[in-house]
Amino acid sequence: MPKRAILAGGGALPQSLLEAGDAILVTFHGTPVDARASQQIEARFEQLASLFARLKSEGVTELCLAGAMRRPVFDPTALDAGTAALMPRLMAALQQGDDGLLRAVIALLEEQGFTICAPHDIRPDLLASEGVMVGEVSAALQADAHRAAAVLAALAPQDVGQGAVVAKGQVLAIETLPGTDAMLEFVAQTCPNSGGILMKRPKAGQDLRVDMPGIGPQTISMMQKAGLSGLVVQAGGALILEREKVLARAASAGITLWAAP
Amino acid sequence: MPKRAILAGGGALPQSLLEAGDAILVTFHGTPVDARASQQIEARFEQLASLFARLKSEGVTELCLAGAMRRPVFDPTALDAGTAALMPRLMAALQQGDDGLLRAVIALLEEQGFTICAPHDIRPDLLASEGVMVGEVSAALQADAHRAAAVLAALAPQDVGQGAVVAKGQVLAIETLPGTDAMLEFVAQTCPNSGGILMKRPKAGQDLRVDMPGIGPQTISMMQKAGLSGLVVQAGGALILEREKVLARAASAGITLWAAP
Repeated sequence: MPKRAILAGGGALPQSLLEAGDAILVTFHGTPVDARASQQIEARFEQLASLFARLKSEGVTELCLAGAMRRPVFDPTALDAGTAALMPRLMAALQQGDDGLLRAVIALLEEQGFTICAPHDIRPDLLASEGVMVGEVSAALQADAHRAAAVLAALAPQDVGQGAVVAKGQVLAIETLPGTDAMLEFVAQTCPNSGGILMKRPKAGQDLRVDMPGIGPQTISMMQKAGLSGLVVQAGGALILEREKVLARAASAGITLWAAP
Repeated sequence: MPKRAILAGGGALPQSLLEAGDAILVTFHGTPVDARASQQIEARFEQLASLFARLKSEGVTELCLAGAMRRPVFDPTALDAGTAALMPRLMAALQQGDDGLLRAVIALLEEQGFTICAPHDIRPDLLASEGVMVGEVSAALQADAHRAAAVLAALAPQDVGQGAVVAKGQVLAIETLPGTDAMLEFVAQTCPNSGGILMKRPKAGQDLRVDMPGIGPQTISMMQKAGLSGLVVQAGGALILEREKVLARAASAGITLWAAP
């Protein structure tokens, strides 16, 4: 069995991957991680070359990027020699959209000989499978979901729009750089109690091994605050983190939760 | 000369149209209007049929819709008989996007025999003409404007997106139902001091007689609060209200203002 390392960001995902099988947990300076493993490595983005060498010496062949990570701020004084040589490439990658940045990072990891594995390869049970999980899909929610899907499909070629909020056919918000929580806060402030839907789905061309949309209990709480009635994810296109909590919270908030084709 | 009525919403537009020539000012219950005319009619959306009759009795043949109007909340107890008969049609129209709603309203007005005239027919000087009005268009602002134009062009067929904010190639916000000011407030809160651009342009298929995008001094103040550097409108596709104030405020805020083809 290949030896695996989890390159961890925030949230519940790294811990749930560690529970599914032995792996080295790699944390990054400045990125808080909520997980514990028998073997941990503390790394810095400025010292990626040292990290690669260390992982190879441990016999790691498989990497999984998991959890929310911000765009790093590089401290030039902390650079190791190997990473300094990579800097022109890394700086160019940082100028790009999220997809472009991730593609550059993955290319780098693959060149080093690592295989990239997706969180849902390790925990297929996290992946939303088609069907209604909580509540009932009314005709109104269905209509709003169709509208949201059409808007996101139109935007996808522009590398924008992992989510949208629609109520009674009106587009209340489209997800942009600040992310889902910021969008839901906007809806709470500008269009409270609309009873609409939140749709989350991957953009076309998004690398689902490393950037699958995820929802968790916080998503449901924010939706409740925004006065929404339904959450639609794409079947096979979203991770549901802390599923028991998500389902319980959606049920008690009266929020319909379904994975559409 | 045809006798004209201004169906007025909020903002500076109705008053500037009244200054350009004689007209009856029609205000609607619940919609505050900042304008005065020698002849005024107070109307209600629930009593459109009565309004039509009154306008015809005054010899009005030309209508101009001007200023910001919210989607009306109908009070069924206030309906007159003629408008009650129109309700199925009006309710269906209210389920649609802004363009659909306006198309339905205009069809109704034209059926009544009125001609629809645009604010820029009355005041052509309000329309943005091609060129840089304030500041200089840097390569960075130009690049962000191209990105914003591509995103809005992709969205236009969906009847969404009269505006977007882009900084360093990243899409920070897309205008939705709550409008431009709400979008700029969102940017101020989530991505302050980005130095990016606000683009405002009509959607494809938007009826520019009744729904031309407009900017005013408040737009510039909100942009300054949001830390933006440039405002791009479409030449011939935006009204600039209180132009002197807009230009002075943009200049003092260091905001480039231009109308692109």
